[in-house]
Amino acid sequence: MQRGLLRTLDFLLVEWLELGSLLQRPRFADHSVETCGELLAMASQLAEEVFEPANRVSDTEEPRIGPDGGVVLPAATHRAWEAFRSAGIAGAGHDHADGGLQLPRTVDMAVRAVLSAAGPNLVPMLLTEGNAALLAEHGSPAQRRAFAVPQVEGRWTGTMALSESQAGSSLADVATRAVPDGTGSADDPLGPRYRITGDKMWISGAEHPLTDNIVHLVLAKVPDDDGTVPTGTGALSLFVVPKVRVGPDGELGERNGVHLVGLNHKLGMRGIPNTALSFDAAVGHLVGAPGQGLAQMFHMMNAARAEIGLLAAALGYAGFAVSLDYARTRRQGRPRGVRDGEQVPLVAHTDVVRMLLAQKSYAEGALALALYVGRLLDDQRTGDDGARARAATLLEVLTPVLKSWPSEWCLEGNSLAIQVLGGAGYTRDFPVEQFWRDQRLNMIHEGTHGIQAMDLLGRKVRLRDGACLRELGAVLSATATRARSAGLGEWAADLERSWGDVLSATDAVWRDDDASAALANATPYLQAFGHVVLAWVHLDLAVAAAGSDHPEAGGRTAAAAYFFAYELPRVAAWLAPVAAGELLCRDLDPALL
Amino acid sequence: MQRGLLRTLDFLLVEWLELGSLLQRPRFADHSVETCGELLAMASQLAEEVFEPANRVSDTEEPRIGPDGGVVLPAATHRAWEAFRSAGIAGAGHDHADGGLQLPRTVDMAVRAVLSAAGPNLVPMLLTEGNAALLAEHGSPAQRRAFAVPQVEGRWTGTMALSESQAGSSLADVATRAVPDGTGSADDPLGPRYRITGDKMWISGAEHPLTDNIVHLVLAKVPDDDGTVPTGTGALSLFVVPKVRVGPDGELGERNGVHLVGLNHKLGMRGIPNTALSFDAAVGHLVGAPGQGLAQMFHMMNAARAEIGLLAAALGYAGFAVSLDYARTRRQGRPRGVRDGEQVPLVAHTDVVRMLLAQKSYAEGALALALYVGRLLDDQRTGDDGARARAATLLEVLTPVLKSWPSEWCLEGNSLAIQVLGGAGYTRDFPVEQFWRDQRLNMIHEGTHGIQAMDLLGRKVRLRDGACLRELGAVLSATATRARSAGLGEWAADLERSWGDVLSATDAVWRDDDASAALANATPYLQAFGHVVLAWVHLDLAVAAAGSDHPEAGGRTAAAAYFFAYELPRVAAWLAPVAAGELLCRDLDPALL
Ligand SMILES: Cc1cc2nc3c(=O)[nH]c(=O)nc-3n(C[C@H](O)[C@H](O)[C@H](O)COP(=O)(O)OP(=O)(O)OC[C@H]3O[C@@H](n4cnc5c(N)ncnc54)[C@H](O)[C@@H]3O)c2cc1C
Ligand SMILES: Cc1cc2nc3c(=O)[nH]c(=O)nc-3n(C[C@H](O)[C@H](O)[C@H](O)COP(=O)(O)OP(=O)(O)OC[C@H]3O[C@@H](n4cnc5c(N)ncnc54)[C@H](O)[C@@H]3O)c2cc1C
Repeated sequence: MQRGLLRTLDFLLVEWLELGSLLQRPRFADHSVETCGELLAMASQLAEEVFEPANRVSDTEEPRIGPDGGVVLPAATHRAWEAFRSAGIAGAGHDHADGGLQLPRTVDMAVRAVLSAAGPNLVPMLLTEGNAALLAEHGSPAQRRAFAVPQVEGRWTGTMALSESQAGSSLADVATRAVPDGTGSADDPLGPRYRITGDKMWISGAEHPLTDNIVHLVLAKVPDDDGTVPTGTGALSLFVVPKVRVGPDGELGERNGVHLVGLNHKLGMRGIPNTALSFDAAVGHLVGAPGQGLAQMFHMMNAARAEIGLLAAALGYAGFAVSLDYARTRRQGRPRGVRDGEQVPLVAHTDVVRMLLAQKSYAEGALALALYVGRLLDDQRTGDDGARARAATLLEVLTPVLKSWPSEWCLEGNSLAIQVLGGAGYTRDFPVEQFWRDQRLNMIHEGTHGIQAMDLLGRKVRLRDGACLRELGAVLSATATRARSAGLGEWAADLERSWGDVLSATDAVWRDDDASAALANATPYLQAFGHVVLAWVHLDLAVAAAGSDHPEAGGRTAAAAYFFAYELPRVAAWLAPVAAGELLCRDLDPALL
Repeated sequence: MQRGLLRTLDFLLVEWLELGSLLQRPRFADHSVETCGELLAMASQLAEEVFEPANRVSDTEEPRIGPDGGVVLPAATHRAWEAFRSAGIAGAGHDHADGGLQLPRTVDMAVRAVLSAAGPNLVPMLLTEGNAALLAEHGSPAQRRAFAVPQVEGRWTGTMALSESQAGSSLADVATRAVPDGTGSADDPLGPRYRITGDKMWISGAEHPLTDNIVHLVLAKVPDDDGTVPTGTGALSLFVVPKVRVGPDGELGERNGVHLVGLNHKLGMRGIPNTALSFDAAVGHLVGAPGQGLAQMFHMMNAARAEIGLLAAALGYAGFAVSLDYARTRRQGRPRGVRDGEQVPLVAHTDVVRMLLAQKSYAEGALALALYVGRLLDDQRTGDDGARARAATLLEVLTPVLKSWPSEWCLEGNSLAIQVLGGAGYTRDFPVEQFWRDQRLNMIHEGTHGIQAMDLLGRKVRLRDGACLRELGAVLSATATRARSAGLGEWAADLERSWGDVLSATDAVWRDDDASAALANATPYLQAFGHVVLAWVHLDLAVAAAGSDHPEAGGRTAAAAYFFAYELPRVAAWLAPVAAGELLCRDLDPALL
């Protein structure tokens, strides 16, 4: 699998996203296209040798609570973590000053794609990286030194502790309380010191034996003077709460009041312990200003949403690669009309090619979108003023797409991988069933599909009077123009038509400015929007391929051809109820269900 | 779950399929609408008390090979089987003379739906019933007595042993051999006696401790005089091969040469042992004429395909029921714009209603289609000449739809059930994840989706110069006419338009009579065709509901409204590449994948 993936990534990074020119920027002075390629090759070897063999084990030997109350993980996971840590890439995108490599995000994400395709269950770094990045952005210098640096160096890991049993989609209902820790607490060198009390649910990686410490970023509310916990998200503040307390110079102190209550037993992604966690007057330090909790947490949530899109793409790729391999070797049946002679490989059957092309277009399209978002993150950090503003606007609208589209369509792709293997795909002798189970999470965590849809249609497309749509529309138009020059005018026209349909549906939906009606079909809108964005990705890739003799070029055109012929027509089906303002689901008497 | 299901079944059977008039036929003289209702209520109690609690256990305590080489199943499965057996409904549709109840197939299928919704893993009867039915149709009177009757009575179970490792989709490649068992073997009272040798793969229920004997129906080939095994499906013959040999009066003799080689470890449907089986000069008796194996086996395969559609529908229903229940009790969030006060039940959110309505339309639509097929099977057996011919023609074309549509869309439904539960749906604390895993099998066994598609577009729509399409078209038209009278003219028009699109696509595809081009998009064709058939089902149900005060009537209209607004528009998307004669997947150089 890794060989094909490296080739695809090379095309995406170098030919498509112009890594060479990105690396001219001062922040990336240490890196060249060659050293990035070497880094990817190293990650790929790590993936193949350590992550891939450990991935199944992490599924069958689920995390469990050991006699000492800690979490027990299989030896293979320990080995994978150790290998990852000592590769020095845990915080590869972070500042040199914090122990990072100042690698572009684009390349950092490509490295993660390589690792995730081999061992999605073994990448607790997902949250760690975002945790450190949030602290680098919003933490005080002391917090950054004490809590972010050890994560960048791979010595500790991090979590995001938002959800509670009664507060999943509705973070306004978080009930965890934070009270100032007595006199002098406001002047704690690590930030105002509070005592945190409450029960969190679903927290990933909140307990494991891999590192000495775990950094929890916790949403909690400071009670009013009369002791009641205020309602709403405006009352949320953010606290950094280490598992083991940390002295002013970063030395480990005593165990903090954070307790593992239990482990959740999941359908997939079993390698990462998922916990019910209780905070019992745990010491925490306020990050940023009180009441800014959710706004700051969005820094991490947006990063996590992008990471989930990337993970989903990588998992989709893994299924594609395994099923392609199988289809090339398994012999079954003969071409239509032929009755005798040897059976042919599955890949000789048209319907099998269809299932492989679909997977290819889902996985590689999703991967491209994720890296494009990575490129925007780089622009946001290192571009000129215009590029920064443009990147910020595009990120607003592309984040819900990247969170949702790969998680829906690479799930479909993983299902097709099973289907290509036939009966064998339904057994645990092949990894495709695990990919499918693992993938199923991605539509749920970090804001469900439905929540992403409301974010897109309820907020993002309306921001600054439609600025996101204008910016994205400009990107699409530019591609269409270049596509026409490259002889791809038919696809350009299809793309423009679909985008036009999305724009009219957006207008129609908001005409009366009635949110409950407008958002009644937010999910089909998200689906349509996502497919149009991916059509753009495929077209833009095909344009890049048209002028290229890269070995990937032919595959790019094939994936685009599939997407335009088989996928883009779906947009009209999703937009039908959106454009019609269908209110069936809003107005139905639930007793009729 | 059972209460809602019984209510739905009552509507389908009594109001829609006119069970009352069916029961007037002489074969069903013992039954009335009331006794059928009582039978369903009994089955429902059995389902709730015995099947439902055992279903999870059958998943977590997977079948294993015990010290004596037999298969070990959990105690709960033994209890479920015993309860099922003693309920006397194992072969409820069979003749009184064979120990059956002469229940209409329609009702028999409703009973199985009730049991399957509660315990899909506990229903080894699926193949048993079809095995007995094949023998009743094609076996000699002695074979029927010796092998079918004990299955109808629930004393033994049966299998279908077609597949081999190298012969899954391609049954032409079956290599199991059958040679006459010496002199006098042709005159064996149980049918010409052969010795069967070969290795079968994927055989469900081929070894278990629930009954004294297991009846295998085996496809094998009689070698040519020079000892070579002929190629092709025309060489397949059918043999009945009991696990334990049977004397002329049905008494059990010695163990036959059938050996369990191993168990397959599956993603789901773990309750039913799935085996690799070897036949080592096992004694078998020829059923029917040599070379008629596949034709006869199609009797069982068609029955099994219908059963799979029914099982898929039942599983879809199970997910719907669990998630509806959850959505009514789980509180999360508030209506848009409301910031304070109690959280509301999930079912108050429009997007959750969308997910529930989708599931409802998939599961109940699939259930209705399955029972409609049951009704056709009843007509085929007990109708007048015209009804028989019509039923036979409709069954040809509806069998691949019933096999494929529920398995695809109730899988989507089961995924939505997970989604409605959010994080909870991803845990093993709720049954929805198991439903989803169990369901995934249904697109694979008994002919994959791709094979069903080629059967539909390559064979069924072309039979007798399009007779199936004409017959089905007539049914659709009749519904459209009644729909117009019932004030449902808009849906009638939508249905007719979509059906017209399917017909033109069919014509376009076969214009050049080039099979490899025509079948290049067989799967999207199958998908489009299936959605149109289901639109018809929903419209026909809505027509029946329009004139009814049955408590189900409102739900029928809601499901139809959902289907016409959100689902039927997909048809155009699938037909786009079909009608365009897209050959991308046929002509692609596989090196580009
Ligand atoms: C394996 C796993 C790992 C996780 N990791 C973390 C983690 O590390 N940190 C963390 O903080 N959380 C984590 N989560 C929690 C995750 O973010 C929540 O599960 C998710 O936000 C959904 O919340 P919920 O489970 O309470 O579902 P609910 O909020 O109850 O939602 C159930 C369903 O109702 C829908 N719904 C809810 N409200 C509305 C509404 N207003 N309008 C329309 N539809 C609505 C949802 O879309 C969903 O389909 C994890 C969850 C899982 C399963
Ligand atoms: C749990 C389980 C239970 C089963 N129970 C039974 C049983 O009781 N009895 C029994 O006899 N069998 C049983 N089967 C076998 C089942 O019918 C086969 O798995 C199925 O027919 C597919 O065959 P295969 O697995 O060899 O896949 P393959 O035939 O190798 O197919 C792999 C993929 O290639 C596609 N493909 C293959 N040939 C073509 C072609 N010519 N054109 C286009 N596409 C093609 C298929 O659609 C599929 O997607 C069972 C299987 C499973 C998994």
